[in-house]
Amino acid sequence: MYHSHETLRDFTRTFFTRIGCSESDASVIADIFITAELRGIGSHGLIRISDHHNLWKAGRLNTAPKITVTRETLSTAVVDGDNAPGMLPAVFSMETAIGKAREAGTGWVACRNSNHFGIAGYYAMMALSHDMIGVCLTNANPLVAPTFSVSRLLGTNPIAVAVPGGKEPPFVADFATTPIARGKLEVAVKKREKTLYGYVQDREGRPTDDPDILRKGGTMLPLGGDREHGSHKGYCLSATVDILSALLSGAGFGPFVPPSVAYLPLPEEGNGKGTGHFFGAMRIDAFREAGEFRDAMDKWIMSFRNAESAEGKPAVLIPGDIEREYEEQARRRGIALIPAVTEELNRIAADLGMEIRL
Amino acid sequence: MYHSHETLRDFTRTFFTRIGCSESDASVIADIFITAELRGIGSHGLIRISDHHNLWKAGRLNTAPKITVTRETLSTAVVDGDNAPGMLPAVFSMETAIGKAREAGTGWVACRNSNHFGIAGYYAMMALSHDMIGVCLTNANPLVAPTFSVSRLLGTNPIAVAVPGGKEPPFVADFATTPIARGKLEVAVKKREKTLYGYVQDREGRPTDDPDILRKGGTMLPLGGDREHGSHKGYCLSATVDILSALLSGAGFGPFVPPSVAYLPLPEEGNGKGTGHFFGAMRIDAFREAGEFRDAMDKWIMSFRNAESAEGKPAVLIPGDIEREYEEQARRRGIALIPAVTEELNRIAADLGMEIRL
Repeated sequence: MYHSHETLRDFTRTFFTRIGCSESDASVIADIFITAELRGIGSHGLIRISDHHNLWKAGRLNTAPKITVTRETLSTAVVDGDNAPGMLPAVFSMETAIGKAREAGTGWVACRNSNHFGIAGYYAMMALSHDMIGVCLTNANPLVAPTFSVSRLLGTNPIAVAVPGGKEPPFVADFATTPIARGKLEVAVKKREKTLYGYVQDREGRPTDDPDILRKGGTMLPLGGDREHGSHKGYCLSATVDILSALLSGAGFGPFVPPSVAYLPLPEEGNGKGTGHFFGAMRIDAFREAGEFRDAMDKWIMSFRNAESAEGKPAVLIPGDIEREYEEQARRRGIALIPAVTEELNRIAADLGMEIRL
Repeated sequence: MYHSHETLRDFTRTFFTRIGCSESDASVIADIFITAELRGIGSHGLIRISDHHNLWKAGRLNTAPKITVTRETLSTAVVDGDNAPGMLPAVFSMETAIGKAREAGTGWVACRNSNHFGIAGYYAMMALSHDMIGVCLTNANPLVAPTFSVSRLLGTNPIAVAVPGGKEPPFVADFATTPIARGKLEVAVKKREKTLYGYVQDREGRPTDDPDILRKGGTMLPLGGDREHGSHKGYCLSATVDILSALLSGAGFGPFVPPSVAYLPLPEEGNGKGTGHFFGAMRIDAFREAGEFRDAMDKWIMSFRNAESAEGKPAVLIPGDIEREYEEQARRRGIALIPAVTEELNRIAADLGMEIRL
């Protein structure tokens, strides 16, 4: 069953007002949830409302936050998210980065005391309409072991970069620093399928194709998979995301990132506050006339579109193509939620006395 | 046979003065070559002197350059390298980034009209003594095909990040955005060994373990190897490096990066000038008291050092460990060059009337 994105937006907005957000904060949050659904990243969409509900019921989410800049220079700022739903400090931080870039050419903001913020690409894309390149990084719950280890020290720590095009649509890369997102393992578990080798390892560090291994003490592998195929590079990337997100801001690093679900305990104190993010905005014309850059970017994109395909493979994709094509369809056709998610959302709506149902 | 690093430094410095560099420029360049040798990255060391010799003889390298800032804001600059050996514009650009960071919190410099600059990590590490985080990216000769393609559109485009520690040594990541560096394929060819699957593909895009496949129209694969294991993420990373290095500066992008060897023709004109780099410097105390950051970084490093190893694997490494340990040995023991390289260098020395021999 398909729902119009406007219905889902209303639902999300209403939910967040019911748990204490202001109307405007709830609208901001809903836009990020719906953008995730529209871009085909349902794993970061309405399926996560129940996590927010549970965190709020457990008193672990501040829905009336005071988000503040605690330190700044001409091109930098540190933001304290006051334990808000992550979307609010994230939008605040990216707006701050964009404002800094307007004055100083670039703006870089580290954010602490935040929570799960949805899709990183949303914040990177905020830069596009300002003729800026946007960057967004975040750390996340520890599930990934560094090369040679079986300890959960890193999250899937994504990197998002958005670059304006000219006649061509923008380049929007948004990817976890692991071979796959965690959600794909869940899907395989639900379908009772094996997964591929190279994604996870068991408690002892042996390769496995069991998608349910995380519940048995296993860990995810960094991008590259094993040492021979460059997992140390995936580890370097994930570590860099953690350092910029948590150590510059004073957030919890690696194993001390608070879980985005209420059924896992909070990490021990004294290792930083909350989840950490890192945002960047670079004004194109700080480097080059924006029109000239856009023309060059179109040329770049066309070089890749015109590349020769490997035997039996489709045409080369530009980062962002898949999500844009999905969105065009989803706006017309609507968005399908998993039936179990719809039921859960309707239960939450009843629980909170919301009138809207899906 | 081992050579002291001081002998190799003298040799390199003398060579570069003989092809027209000033004494001070030659010293700067020699420091980068010797740092590569000391850190165990011989593929970027004296083996490359002959490429520089050949490029210079072909009139493709300007050894008396005027390196200039062509555009700037408070936190950014664009540098034109005047077709110099890449080390000179790279040092100039990173110094510019550090200077900007001193004033504005961060500094970001895009450089065009440059050439191969040796190891990216050198420039990132320049930030460390200033209590800054250093970043360095560069594009490189096209050898890598984007996911689904067999066209050479990207280089091995490395990423280097250096972060100061406290009592612990700095975190220094410096890695190609491919599973392995090209040099490892050459080694396998010379040893008449097969390589592993996941590094290269043949002309049609089929997996192969032939390390000599690049000479037969094959291509290297991005980090991740194949689509199922995240090669599209390696492609995103490499593309981002190319865009920041070339499109912000006006350098040649992707297929239009000039080769670092004289036996390959220059790319067609009109697609940007020379090789492109991108440099960043972030003042730690723009975000957080430097002492507090260093303590947190030590804690971060110790969390990783204390991680549990997988069955049969060594302890977790911090990026930079291997190179630092190699350097401690190499300073005592000296540096071994491949005999064929020593012979070639001695021939070049004779050719240029240098007195020094290895």
